[in-house]
Amino acid sequence: MTLARPESPPRCSSPLSQRYEQIRRFTLALAEPLTDEDCQVQSMPDASPTKWHLAHVTWFFETFILERFEPGFRAFEPMFRVLFNSYYQGVGERHPRPQRGLITSPTLAQVKRYRADVDARMLSLLAARPDDAQLNELLTLGLHHEQQHQELLLTDIKHALSFNPLHGPYAKRWPIGAVSPQPPQWHGFDGGMFQLGHESSRDGDFCFDNETPRHGTYLAPFELASRPVSNGEFMAFMDDDGYRRPELWLSMGWDWVQAEQRDAPLYWRQEENRWLTHTLQGQVEIDPHTPACHLSFFEAEAYARWAGARLPTEAEWELAARRLIKSSPTHGNFAERGAFHPLPASVPDGGEPLQMYGDVWEWTQSNYNPYPGYRPLPGAVGEYNGKFMCNQFVLRGGSCATPAGHVRASYRNFFPPDAQWQFTGLRLAR
Amino acid sequence: MTLARPESPPRCSSPLSQRYEQIRRFTLALAEPLTDEDCQVQSMPDASPTKWHLAHVTWFFETFILERFEPGFRAFEPMFRVLFNSYYQGVGERHPRPQRGLITSPTLAQVKRYRADVDARMLSLLAARPDDAQLNELLTLGLHHEQQHQELLLTDIKHALSFNPLHGPYAKRWPIGAVSPQPPQWHGFDGGMFQLGHESSRDGDFCFDNETPRHGTYLAPFELASRPVSNGEFMAFMDDDGYRRPELWLSMGWDWVQAEQRDAPLYWRQEENRWLTHTLQGQVEIDPHTPACHLSFFEAEAYARWAGARLPTEAEWELAARRLIKSSPTHGNFAERGAFHPLPASVPDGGEPLQMYGDVWEWTQSNYNPYPGYRPLPGAVGEYNGKFMCNQFVLRGGSCATPAGHVRASYRNFFPPDAQWQFTGLRLAR
Amino acid sequence: MTLARPESPPRCSSPLSQRYEQIRRFTLALAEPLTDEDCQVQSMPDASPTKWHLAHVTWFFETFILERFEPGFRAFEPMFRVLFNSYYQGVGERHPRPQRGLITSPTLAQVKRYRADVDARMLSLLAARPDDAQLNELLTLGLHHEQQHQELLLTDIKHALSFNPLHGPYAKRWPIGAVSPQPPQWHGFDGGMFQLGHESSRDGDFCFDNETPRHGTYLAPFELASRPVSNGEFMAFMDDDGYRRPELWLSMGWDWVQAEQRDAPLYWRQEENRWLTHTLQGQVEIDPHTPACHLSFFEAEAYARWAGARLPTEAEWELAARRLIKSSPTHGNFAERGAFHPLPASVPDGGEPLQMYGDVWEWTQSNYNPYPGYRPLPGAVGEYNGKFMCNQFVLRGGSCATPAGHVRASYRNFFPPDAQWQFTGLRLAR
Amino acid sequence: MTLARPESPPRCSSPLSQRYEQIRRFTLALAEPLTDEDCQVQSMPDASPTKWHLAHVTWFFETFILERFEPGFRAFEPMFRVLFNSYYQGVGERHPRPQRGLITSPTLAQVKRYRADVDARMLSLLAARPDDAQLNELLTLGLHHEQQHQELLLTDIKHALSFNPLHGPYAKRWPIGAVSPQPPQWHGFDGGMFQLGHESSRDGDFCFDNETPRHGTYLAPFELASRPVSNGEFMAFMDDDGYRRPELWLSMGWDWVQAEQRDAPLYWRQEENRWLTHTLQGQVEIDPHTPACHLSFFEAEAYARWAGARLPTEAEWELAARRLIKSSPTHGNFAERGAFHPLPASVPDGGEPLQMYGDVWEWTQSNYNPYPGYRPLPGAVGEYNGKFMCNQFVLRGGSCATPAGHVRASYRNFFPPDAQWQFTGLRLAR
Repeated sequence: MTLARPESPPRCSSPLSQRYEQIRRFTLALAEPLTDEDCQVQSMPDASPTKWHLAHVTWFFETFILERFEPGFRAFEPMFRVLFNSYYQGVGERHPRPQRGLITSPTLAQVKRYRADVDARMLSLLAARPDDAQLNELLTLGLHHEQQHQELLLTDIKHALSFNPLHGPYAKRWPIGAVSPQPPQWHGFDGGMFQLGHESSRDGDFCFDNETPRHGTYLAPFELASRPVSNGEFMAFMDDDGYRRPELWLSMGWDWVQAEQRDAPLYWRQEENRWLTHTLQGQVEIDPHTPACHLSFFEAEAYARWAGARLPTEAEWELAARRLIKSSPTHGNFAERGAFHPLPASVPDGGEPLQMYGDVWEWTQSNYNPYPGYRPLPGAVGEYNGKFMCNQFVLRGGSCATPAGHVRASYRNFFPPDAQWQFTGLRLAR
Repeated sequence: MTLARPESPPRCSSPLSQRYEQIRRFTLALAEPLTDEDCQVQSMPDASPTKWHLAHVTWFFETFILERFEPGFRAFEPMFRVLFNSYYQGVGERHPRPQRGLITSPTLAQVKRYRADVDARMLSLLAARPDDAQLNELLTLGLHHEQQHQELLLTDIKHALSFNPLHGPYAKRWPIGAVSPQPPQWHGFDGGMFQLGHESSRDGDFCFDNETPRHGTYLAPFELASRPVSNGEFMAFMDDDGYRRPELWLSMGWDWVQAEQRDAPLYWRQEENRWLTHTLQGQVEIDPHTPACHLSFFEAEAYARWAGARLPTEAEWELAARRLIKSSPTHGNFAERGAFHPLPASVPDGGEPLQMYGDVWEWTQSNYNPYPGYRPLPGAVGEYNGKFMCNQFVLRGGSCATPAGHVRASYRNFFPPDAQWQFTGLRLAR
Repeated sequence: MTLARPESPPRCSSPLSQRYEQIRRFTLALAEPLTDEDCQVQSMPDASPTKWHLAHVTWFFETFILERFEPGFRAFEPMFRVLFNSYYQGVGERHPRPQRGLITSPTLAQVKRYRADVDARMLSLLAARPDDAQLNELLTLGLHHEQQHQELLLTDIKHALSFNPLHGPYAKRWPIGAVSPQPPQWHGFDGGMFQLGHESSRDGDFCFDNETPRHGTYLAPFELASRPVSNGEFMAFMDDDGYRRPELWLSMGWDWVQAEQRDAPLYWRQEENRWLTHTLQGQVEIDPHTPACHLSFFEAEAYARWAGARLPTEAEWELAARRLIKSSPTHGNFAERGAFHPLPASVPDGGEPLQMYGDVWEWTQSNYNPYPGYRPLPGAVGEYNGKFMCNQFVLRGGSCATPAGHVRASYRNFFPPDAQWQFTGLRLAR
Repeated sequence: MTLARPESPPRCSSPLSQRYEQIRRFTLALAEPLTDEDCQVQSMPDASPTKWHLAHVTWFFETFILERFEPGFRAFEPMFRVLFNSYYQGVGERHPRPQRGLITSPTLAQVKRYRADVDARMLSLLAARPDDAQLNELLTLGLHHEQQHQELLLTDIKHALSFNPLHGPYAKRWPIGAVSPQPPQWHGFDGGMFQLGHESSRDGDFCFDNETPRHGTYLAPFELASRPVSNGEFMAFMDDDGYRRPELWLSMGWDWVQAEQRDAPLYWRQEENRWLTHTLQGQVEIDPHTPACHLSFFEAEAYARWAGARLPTEAEWELAARRLIKSSPTHGNFAERGAFHPLPASVPDGGEPLQMYGDVWEWTQSNYNPYPGYRPLPGAVGEYNGKFMCNQFVLRGGSCATPAGHVRASYRNFFPPDAQWQFTGLRLAR
């Protein structure tokens, strides 16, 4: 394998090029605090090494854009097509997912050269074809794809570092200012017909195929809590034997509690009389006012039952999000803030739910199913979403590890009910 | 353990008593063709021995009715409370499910005495309290519960006998008359608001809690096929490499195909140039006009994608079922007919979908979720349904193993997406 | 399948015929206390149903003798060749071992007819060819084979009944007379060259191939305990945290203790302040003077280390057995006594080790390996022993479930180091 | 964690110090061709990362020597005691073995500083106490321990690189000169009493505890092949359906073949009409004259049966090794030669077996058991050997990855029968 040395990328000033450069830089910045070794490891089959993320998002641009649009395209390294394909059957063979952590060649340095090479070629291509609608559409998809992997890079490395007692903090300790804890309020919403799904005029031009088609659905009146469930509230559930009472759990959730011997959220551990948690800032004491996170769907659902409430449906969540006046999906505790941890609400509830965007992904009771009339994108990129619509639940709103501007009211994230390593929490409904 | 000898049951003539006697007799009749040994075995953790079914449904009456209503109640045998409790955490300890096949004591004969004893006491109680509404409600629940186990008894023993190359047929060969194969038609349905869920005036007084509350839902216009997919049609999918093309499958379905090395429905095997299948009538050749059955959700969903169509939602199915004029949930190929196998449609399509009831359960694309405002029954019987609402899909319409009169338009059956041992097929929608 | 009705067996008076009849009757007698259902079940892959044992030993005579020697041989039922073949690859296909408990056809009654049919034909054959050496050799092998399965029938059904809280005792309670507990003594043995292996003049004509060839081995002087380790002694190990101290265990044994969460021998359970154990006579309190049994090799080996001693080698055991004057392999607590449980030594140690034969199989530290120059029997019967010579340890001396006359000084039993369901104990050496 | 900067080690000239420096340098040299990422990965639970090997052998010196002998000892980093303890229960808690690949902190650079720090302190200590017998004994143990890990480092990284299609060769291609293939000869050996085990006067002062005590054993006459089985000979076994004939295999070996779907040795793959194998020099074509390696015990044992021979016992091997005149354990194809692959015999058989030392470890039929009278070393170092004496087989003679001077006639290596990733082959006996 000969790894070419990248030339310096040509300057170009189209907004999409700038966006490309900015997002690509942010990915590298997220890997900056990590050693070569940190970037190598895979701590479970569901997680991927940082190095793999860096390469895979690059592979996406090379495979779906350069290969199609670049004149005289030649693969940077043909074997990368196999090594860094995640799950696209349409693109050909893939390296087995649980063995991603075994790829020591290319090294991190070589992957960075791969990134630089593809960046240079992408920017040339963009400069040459600034108005190619198809190209721009795939570029936009690729950028949102990279943002998703920015979040995964953070949650995966958090998981890996949890096995490293000697590792220093990934990030600086975030400042938690004085907060006046607010008891949660209920906000009521009228029912009726509601249009669910992506709406260009309000959500922006881009969306994933799973947010379409926009369609009517009927909702009964409901109420939503003013903020996510806090650590303190979740501790009350634990103190009330929440993890030991089968009647609070789905049957499959109870099996999970027993098989995994769970008695607290992921990363929590008790030391003498206090609870600590592993964070990207190292071990910290649990703060009762901070939104509870790293909850599985099972834990969120059991908590809601215990609290005499329920999880919202995704339609309810989306309706409430569309009613927000003071909040928007671009402001909030997102990855750029650098906290990499949910934060307590610092402002009083001004008549609408707080923290709908950022901080923690909110589990809904909705299965991740196709919307009526859903059609995947044509070709291999159509494997992006549709084929995962089974035994997963929808989460809404983004988290402290989501890049700002990535989510929107119609955005649907999804994970299996036992997944815990994302920044996942809940907001009650009734 | 001393097993009391039952006295002859007192005669009584209330309709509910008669229904009780009739259903209880039918269960015994289903076990009649089986030896003591047949009734003992458990061929997989998901299935139960016939003897266990006979005892468990009796335990249900003893635990939820006699214990509460019978003066001076004494358990027939206290340990049965553990041995024959299926999954009711509220009732206490349970025998581990995968070990049901190891319970050799009580014997089949003793279980039959247990049945007779409980029957005698139940009939006395019913004669004494003919108008007790609470009693009658629980009795009705118990009878529907027993009917569900009649179906499971049939599907479980079919599975067990599939491991017995020397076993004679459970039932006589059914007569398949001459059929004029009908290509499937599409029946169109208007969209709009639709009331989903149990409606006493049309569905009868009884329903399971999961069919409630009745609630409005909005449906877009859709079309439904006139009959279930046939074996011949499914073979065309197989001939078109259906089991070897990942793009036709959900990601989880494809993993299942590969892990289980599937290339045909359960019970099918190829012998020279023909396909045979194991049935309750022994090995028979696949009939192309018979509805395909023993399909997992994954297979049904992949077939639909291959066919350029999709599975219906449960709301679509229920709406279509409510529009039926010529068919009803009490007529069709149900267990009482004794075929224990789906049959080809023998009549032409008279303007409405055929075989909506009986023959095969029809997979829908709907997850088994609580209806808005759903509340489980109070107490241990509340564990009947709600706690299973996770990673299961809804099936509608009943099968050739369902007792007649057990299903209705609002009836929701549910199984995980890889389950195959029920009589499960599909009907296309678009 | 048509199952022929057996004719009454012809009388014949050769000693081998009589032995055949006697052993075959004893097998049936062992199954006598069991119901049809008891005879059906298989409680783990390593164990087999009673019905399967009854059929398999019959299959052995049919396959290896009748098929070869009977003029005009026709299989009783051709499929039995598959169903009741245990592991003989040379005979052809086999039914999967873990599915033996699913064979409901043939029924127990049919298997008994199979036995009767083969018995009649065997006795006719033996009467016709009384002096056929090859026939007699295979017959003798078949009878020892059946005796081995008599023991397995007992240990397998004991295991199955342990899952049956309601089952009555298999056998009557044995009388434990007053015993004067004897502290164990050490008996010394000189070292030197020793001939290991079967010796016709002293061990009888028959042996399994694994006892041959007789060969010289050199032994250093050693001492052997006068009797097996007792329950009381094993409890002292438990009280001294024996199950919680890794330094007492082989690495693999410690992994086993932790994975299986062991803190007592198989079948023991603590109830308030006393230890009970499941036996073929029902639940009984642990008697401190009775030999400890159902120990794995790991437990035996850890106990010996704790006691500052070790397990004997099989050569040491055999040398000691050959020095016995007052004991013989035909007297002792064997299956015919009907205790089906080890018993405390009732006589004082008269200058030689007690209970070398019967009561409990004694783990040795010797791996089950071929003797130098070992050759398996030719043909499929050669699969009897040799192919299992891997990761198993040798046990010596027979147990309370071994038929009298089955063992001898050179007899080698073998099980993997984690096996517990045989009547296995230990005797210390140093 | 603050990682101290090592001072330059004091010069000292005792032979043991020189040996220490030499062995420690060789370990680093073996890691030299690897990137930081290569040194991080763990490709299976049985293997360890290079970085872990580098740290663990250092931990051994720190824990068993510095902690005991160094005045004012302070741990370099207390947590290393947990992270780099392999299996010594006596030393305290250990990091879970399958998670060794997740330790990214310390980095490789930090581990090298750890090595340098311990080296400096060790050399000071050795200079200060040149004649401390206890110290020198533990030092010698530590050096042999490090040599064992040099071999494991090579076999583990070979395994890891086998998952890396893009990785360049670890080492240069070795020169295979022209060889005149020799058909194997049989060398006969008389039987009789033989003293097995370590003999200081011939084997040197050092040995592991498992080579003691020296003791008498009796051997029948036997013959040994003049060289290990070659690739060409093993291919003849494969061509004769060796992997498809159950009668050639131990029962457990056959299960392994089927479960793992084996049809060739580890690392072999067929490409068109030729066989290739992964080596530390990259993919190379199979050379028929090279000794076959990466064979499991199961494969070696099946090959021997197919060839009408058997594996030697370890006593036979050791007796033959002691008779060698022209060969010695210090000359041969060992790690220092840098071939890292077995080589064909280049000299004619001069009246004695060739390649007894180096090239491939030779499986024996002997279980890894304690010698009569065996006692482990006292304290935690006593966990080195004894506790693994279960379900493992002895290998003799060293391999192309063994450091020269590490093995001797009495040296016992051991692995479970399914292990393949060591350089393991066989030599026939009869």
